[in-house]
Amino acid sequence: MHNYAVIMAGGSGTRFWPMSRQSRPKQLLRLLSEQPLIQETVDRVRPLIPPSRVLIVCNHAYLDSMRAMLPEIPKENFIGEPMGRNTSPCVALAAVELGRRDPDSVMCVLPADHHIHNVARFQKLLETALKGAAQAQLLVTFGIIPSKPHTGYGYIYAAESMTTVDGVGFLRAERFMEKPPRSMAEEYLNQGNHYWNSGMFVWRTSLILDELRQYVPDVINPIAEFAQAGGRFHADDPGFESMFARLPAISIDYGVMEKSRRVSLIRGDFGWNDVGSWDALEEILPADGGNIAVGEGTMLLDSRRNIVYGDGVLVACLGIEDLVVVATGDAVLVARKDRAQDVRQVVEKLREKQLNKYL
Amino acid sequence: MHNYAVIMAGGSGTRFWPMSRQSRPKQLLRLLSEQPLIQETVDRVRPLIPPSRVLIVCNHAYLDSMRAMLPEIPKENFIGEPMGRNTSPCVALAAVELGRRDPDSVMCVLPADHHIHNVARFQKLLETALKGAAQAQLLVTFGIIPSKPHTGYGYIYAAESMTTVDGVGFLRAERFMEKPPRSMAEEYLNQGNHYWNSGMFVWRTSLILDELRQYVPDVINPIAEFAQAGGRFHADDPGFESMFARLPAISIDYGVMEKSRRVSLIRGDFGWNDVGSWDALEEILPADGGNIAVGEGTMLLDSRRNIVYGDGVLVACLGIEDLVVVATGDAVLVARKDRAQDVRQVVEKLREKQLNKYL
Repeated sequence: MHNYAVIMAGGSGTRFWPMSRQSRPKQLLRLLSEQPLIQETVDRVRPLIPPSRVLIVCNHAYLDSMRAMLPEIPKENFIGEPMGRNTSPCVALAAVELGRRDPDSVMCVLPADHHIHNVARFQKLLETALKGAAQAQLLVTFGIIPSKPHTGYGYIYAAESMTTVDGVGFLRAERFMEKPPRSMAEEYLNQGNHYWNSGMFVWRTSLILDELRQYVPDVINPIAEFAQAGGRFHADDPGFESMFARLPAISIDYGVMEKSRRVSLIRGDFGWNDVGSWDALEEILPADGGNIAVGEGTMLLDSRRNIVYGDGVLVACLGIEDLVVVATGDAVLVARKDRAQDVRQVVEKLREKQLNKYL
Repeated sequence: MHNYAVIMAGGSGTRFWPMSRQSRPKQLLRLLSEQPLIQETVDRVRPLIPPSRVLIVCNHAYLDSMRAMLPEIPKENFIGEPMGRNTSPCVALAAVELGRRDPDSVMCVLPADHHIHNVARFQKLLETALKGAAQAQLLVTFGIIPSKPHTGYGYIYAAESMTTVDGVGFLRAERFMEKPPRSMAEEYLNQGNHYWNSGMFVWRTSLILDELRQYVPDVINPIAEFAQAGGRFHADDPGFESMFARLPAISIDYGVMEKSRRVSLIRGDFGWNDVGSWDALEEILPADGGNIAVGEGTMLLDSRRNIVYGDGVLVACLGIEDLVVVATGDAVLVARKDRAQDVRQVVEKLREKQLNKYL
């Protein structure tokens, strides 16, 4: 039984403007190291899953740049979505594709743009998750043991054990909660048994196909029928885009995970971050003189608690605090750090003003 | 009797980094309008003094760019200083040069990089100053009626009238004061009869030559003797640099104005600013939505009281207050507004680190 990784690389990451652009989405950025986030994701599973068994699902506009960036992954392992339709159609495409290639497979589904601090620990747990998913016919999700009452993550409640594999408990995932307000997040932490929803899943291909058919037939059936009729998941196939465009945009959490009775959670303690916006860098990278400074040329004088990113541009800061400063050759962002979530408003404004070259 | 303007363009303006660079000093920047500051200065005196009678004194390194920027000024009217030696040698060079060209002339000495709001009013008073200087044998200085207890300017005390021309009083300038602390500046304003030292002067060429000989012979004599012997104020003349290098670096205020008994002040009420650092833009330019925004591409969301300058670069601000943000294609400055004076520290740091391409 082969293990596969499906890397979901559909996002655009407007909150990382001006580094992220339409032509250079977040997962292709070197935000945290010399490697783009998606390369880090591929490298992270490599000891368990070779590049030949890694599938990348991304917007078809990015296919060329993705393939260029990840030459070790076979060309036919990239699936281009004609448009964003959230994660259920993405998972369904990959599951149907793997179903025809290798029906008796186990797949892990990983977002392309997350950060994991302790990679060895993650690999150990991923191995266990792959084994557990194969043995126990479960939809396995990684629930991250929360380190603080984060309001930027969804939570999963899980207390009761379903099974144990290699000494790791597989808990019954009983409730999925949206991003909570601060007070509720604190309550979750006080109660215990609440975990951050990492959006990383492991399951047999045959099981997720069953569950998709049961809970989101509107998503899976058109895809399965299209494939059955010989359709290819490719822009060259004239039927693909029109089929895909009609699929409902439903997340896999909402579509399947919250409904299925076979959802299990294993506890992740490997240091995880979804790298959601510029302020996340502070949770991931080490501070230097009280600031997070990335890029060749940053100069900080009397400045504290800033996140400063210079992409081929010298950034000099003088007497500033609690800001995000990001400079590229043609655009600069200066934002209060606690407004980092709202950087997408800048991008919306640029779109309104049709300043397309900055999008 | 001809009137001449001597425009002192010797500064480098490191406080306007990253717009100002070694190769592009402040007076060549388009900080306040579509015109570089030095062009504004030339245009401001044009109704009274044609470009053919404007002398520009600048560092010899800038001669080519100055000439290119001001093609209407004859080539021989540019004098290149081999190095900065403060304003006494600068004035002395110009005075000796004018003394040989047109001994019976009146000269006004103007910094290249100041801003004047009410140009018509300035022209009217300059006309009066030129007339008064010619008639009354006075060293005339413009004292600006202070609008607030500014601590960035020197002050001049003047109360008693020396003469009146065209209804304008020429007061005796009795005391020159350095930039005061806040409390003293407030005291000056309470007392009245204190004016900002604008550094703009008007006098007969013959009179300033006399006064230079009397008060700063170390400055004027070497220059006069060099000229007498047929030397030219030009880098091609092998003796010029070594003569100039030995001159003491003394300001004209300290060297002559504070000592001469013939110094008179006329009150300037034309809205003047020495454009000393980025925060000065706030005193000069109109605010737009609570911010000063210059450059084609600036986008301010929920931001107040900032000075934002984008030079061919889009600058987006989100939720920020009281900052200076200046972006060029290769360098960005983000500074707290009340630290605008300290931008030179950034330049010093760049010099220390030998990051010469940003200097």
